[in-house]
Amino acid sequence: MSLVTPFAGHRLDRADPIRHDAERLAELRQPNARLLRLEGLIPRLGPDQRVQWDRLGDAPEGADVVFLGLLDGEPLFAAVPTDGDPDPAYTRRETWAAIADLPADELALYGGARSLLDWHARHRFCANCGQPTMLAKGGWQRDCLACGAAHFPRTDPVTIMLVEHRGPKGSRVLLGRNARFPGRSYSALAGFIEPGETIEEAVAREVFEEAGVRVRDVSYIASQPWPFPSQLMIACHAYADDDALTLDATELEDAQWFTRGQVIEAFEKGQESASFVPPFPLAIAHHMLRWWLETNDG
Amino acid sequence: MSLVTPFAGHRLDRADPIRHDAERLAELRQPNARLLRLEGLIPRLGPDQRVQWDRLGDAPEGADVVFLGLLDGEPLFAAVPTDGDPDPAYTRRETWAAIADLPADELALYGGARSLLDWHARHRFCANCGQPTMLAKGGWQRDCLACGAAHFPRTDPVTIMLVEHRGPKGSRVLLGRNARFPGRSYSALAGFIEPGETIEEAVAREVFEEAGVRVRDVSYIASQPWPFPSQLMIACHAYADDDALTLDATELEDAQWFTRGQVIEAFEKGQESASFVPPFPLAIAHHMLRWWLETNDG
Repeated sequence: MSLVTPFAGHRLDRADPIRHDAERLAELRQPNARLLRLEGLIPRLGPDQRVQWDRLGDAPEGADVVFLGLLDGEPLFAAVPTDGDPDPAYTRRETWAAIADLPADELALYGGARSLLDWHARHRFCANCGQPTMLAKGGWQRDCLACGAAHFPRTDPVTIMLVEHRGPKGSRVLLGRNARFPGRSYSALAGFIEPGETIEEAVAREVFEEAGVRVRDVSYIASQPWPFPSQLMIACHAYADDDALTLDATELEDAQWFTRGQVIEAFEKGQESASFVPPFPLAIAHHMLRWWLETNDG
Repeated sequence: MSLVTPFAGHRLDRADPIRHDAERLAELRQPNARLLRLEGLIPRLGPDQRVQWDRLGDAPEGADVVFLGLLDGEPLFAAVPTDGDPDPAYTRRETWAAIADLPADELALYGGARSLLDWHARHRFCANCGQPTMLAKGGWQRDCLACGAAHFPRTDPVTIMLVEHRGPKGSRVLLGRNARFPGRSYSALAGFIEPGETIEEAVAREVFEEAGVRVRDVSYIASQPWPFPSQLMIACHAYADDDALTLDATELEDAQWFTRGQVIEAFEKGQESASFVPPFPLAIAHHMLRWWLETNDG
């Protein structure tokens, strides 16, 4: 079973050669070219619940404009808002409401654009020397004219893992909740991959740090671009031989092993009767649990 | 066959709780604690060809110091050099010479330390407001006191792929060379994963951009932290049904399909008689090719 994750599946031609061709870029920047309609970083949808396009000529004066790529041969642009997301990891209700019903390809287009725009809005200065930087390569780079440094959009790899224990109680998976989760919500453990470690090492470290559990046989499941602000979620499966938990209270409010039956119930029943509330469908953790139900026979 | 990659396999306890505990950190920062011996970013080895440790009290006055973690319970530190690497992607001969014979765990320790130190040296200012930032959390964060932004070390995910074509000529893999490679060297194609795409989408995009080849059935092989400056190399395999090449001359000087026999020859014979020079053993591409020889029967 191959996992298709939300925020994947864009239909853009990223047209890398155009980014490097200032003349071609200038030709494409016609006043009637398409400009993604946003209010800050939130998409303004049409009555059909799809993303809308303004004209490039309508971009605020002086705004940085990024070239998203070509869609069916037509160039798409977006304007960098004045402010980035002040709390990018826990974004606002209005964003979720706006994107809940977008078709997959538009969700992916929006997600990629959002990450790029938010990066520009929060990275207007050179980290090397402190001077202002200028947008370059159609928005896929920022250049410092003072010290010559080039800066690139961030994509931060994060591991998210389904740890499985097989024992007398059958197969169970480890899910946790932190204090910011809504009531009774549990999800897969996750954490940023650090310099100097592999994906597999990061999985083992995170599970041990957060839950005190040693894992073996880490395997890759799927990946997902997550635009709050710009993570690459790397989903893995791993086995634990010992199910004793020692929780890191600063990371997790609770963590528990859930049986196949409890996971099925959580998806099928409402919040009231199930033993936990599963992650929502935009999260890769939701699809990891469904993948586990499909591929594991209990 | 599971791949163990160079720069993986560190033995550090990254001791995340200590990073967040200023008091504990201060206790560990004793003048006689271990400080990694570096000249700039290059390790200064002992006569035994292993990394050496100075005392924390010997760190240059005013230098930022990072807490690498605990090794066998003992805290390890390293001092941020004045300058980062001016050309971090193509590092200097002295570095390769210094690390060529390090044992795997020390190579991994050095790699992780190097990425972190280079990031600090090249990110002393706030990208959000341009003011100087201060090292925080033992070196795993930098804080801006002016605007309140927190900044984290970069880890940039890169896909590197072995594209395979099966046809009348047997199984062949696609390798390319760019103009900066030494003569007749070929390696796996590679490229940064961008905001808004999955690992699998990035693989397909890169191969099409660089070589004009469409791929299917992308699968994950292994990962490697690469400290020049701080990539996470994500190795994948993919199939191509059409072997026609259209090269992007700005990325590749040449690309060719190589047979199993040619790859075996490249590893076994010297430079003179083989059809190409394979990637060196520190590169994950070297191990991807060996993995392919092991798992593919031609």
